[in-house]
Amino acid sequence: MASKIIDDMNWRYATKKFDPKKEITKKDLDELLETLRLSPSSYGLQPWKFLVITDEKLRKDLRDNATRGQAQITDASHMIALCVRTDIDEHVSKYIKSIMKTRGVSRDSLRDYENRMTESLGKNPPEKKEEWASRQIYIALGFLLFACAAKHIDACPMEGFDAKKFDEILGLKKKNLKSVVLCTIGYRGDDGFAKRKKVRFEKKDVFEFL
Amino acid sequence: MASKIIDDMNWRYATKKFDPKKEITKKDLDELLETLRLSPSSYGLQPWKFLVITDEKLRKDLRDNATRGQAQITDASHMIALCVRTDIDEHVSKYIKSIMKTRGVSRDSLRDYENRMTESLGKNPPEKKEEWASRQIYIALGFLLFACAAKHIDACPMEGFDAKKFDEILGLKKKNLKSVVLCTIGYRGDDGFAKRKKVRFEKKDVFEFL
Repeated sequence: MASKIIDDMNWRYATKKFDPKKEITKKDLDELLETLRLSPSSYGLQPWKFLVITDEKLRKDLRDNATRGQAQITDASHMIALCVRTDIDEHVSKYIKSIMKTRGVSRDSLRDYENRMTESLGKNPPEKKEEWASRQIYIALGFLLFACAAKHIDACPMEGFDAKKFDEILGLKKKNLKSVVLCTIGYRGDDGFAKRKKVRFEKKDVFEFL
Repeated sequence: MASKIIDDMNWRYATKKFDPKKEITKKDLDELLETLRLSPSSYGLQPWKFLVITDEKLRKDLRDNATRGQAQITDASHMIALCVRTDIDEHVSKYIKSIMKTRGVSRDSLRDYENRMTESLGKNPPEKKEEWASRQIYIALGFLLFACAAKHIDACPMEGFDAKKFDEILGLKKKNLKSVVLCTIGYRGDDGFAKRKKVRFEKKDVFEFL
């Protein structure tokens, strides 16, 4: 099947070795960040914050707390830590105010919507709420990875890091945030991985038509 | 900021009302499904299966078990149930075989990689494994939603359904699957939602530069 989308999907891979000399331009970065900002989430709640980290010292400290000292963390042009909000209840309130402001509607007109959110979320203990919110972060990660592929900017998403240490280093607790997943972005270096065949299960193994 | 990506992001919205007469062509559907198949996941493990549901009777039954009887389930051109595998350990083994076949490499050469996966996953109880795998499903959901937007095909992701009932109706237990999230796709009907302003927090609220 030939299409730009499929070509882009096949072009991308989890880049293990970045060219440390190549930087993403401000224009490209702005577009990628706008894609993150516009990402969909359940209820449109956006239970997230994205830390864009370029400081060298900080990235070295973080790399020291990555599971295998992944070089991407220091070598990629930018590193983004995708974080979940831990203050979901307060966030729902902020979100409702944001709808009122954007659409010029009254709080009363949103009462049903707000109740639906608070009822559905409220019955869960904090860790369940966080887990639900963390899933939404992965939609945003998907959007970032897709946008990178479309622009032929390389990316490597990473779950292998000591989240508690990261949160300490980044001072996230007092900001009501927790790091969920990382994504380094930039340009591939001389990386043997780029030439390896993409491994995916066959259609018959991943689809069922009913 | 003007770019096709940003325009597409702004074009899309969670479509509540589909035009039941408009169908996605086979060519477009194939491209969307290929995007799902090529979606990234942690380790490249693809701990998922995608059910593409068109059968009218089945969709009616499922709609009856959606939280608010969402009309999208019967009215959209296609409904996709994104499911997580519950047989993760066996799946790792299948995945290793898939790498061997695709790249023509020996099992020995993949031993470290396999060990890393089994060690990192193995220490978790089944529900933790499933939760981890479910997060990956949301990357695939992100890819599907982005591809739809790029092709100006409408979509509505949905978490509001009785997952146990869905799994029963779809006979998922014996297939080692659980439904995680739904996505209906097709073309928007006369939907007031399309005209509403998109609500997103401002840049200063979602980004921090370090």
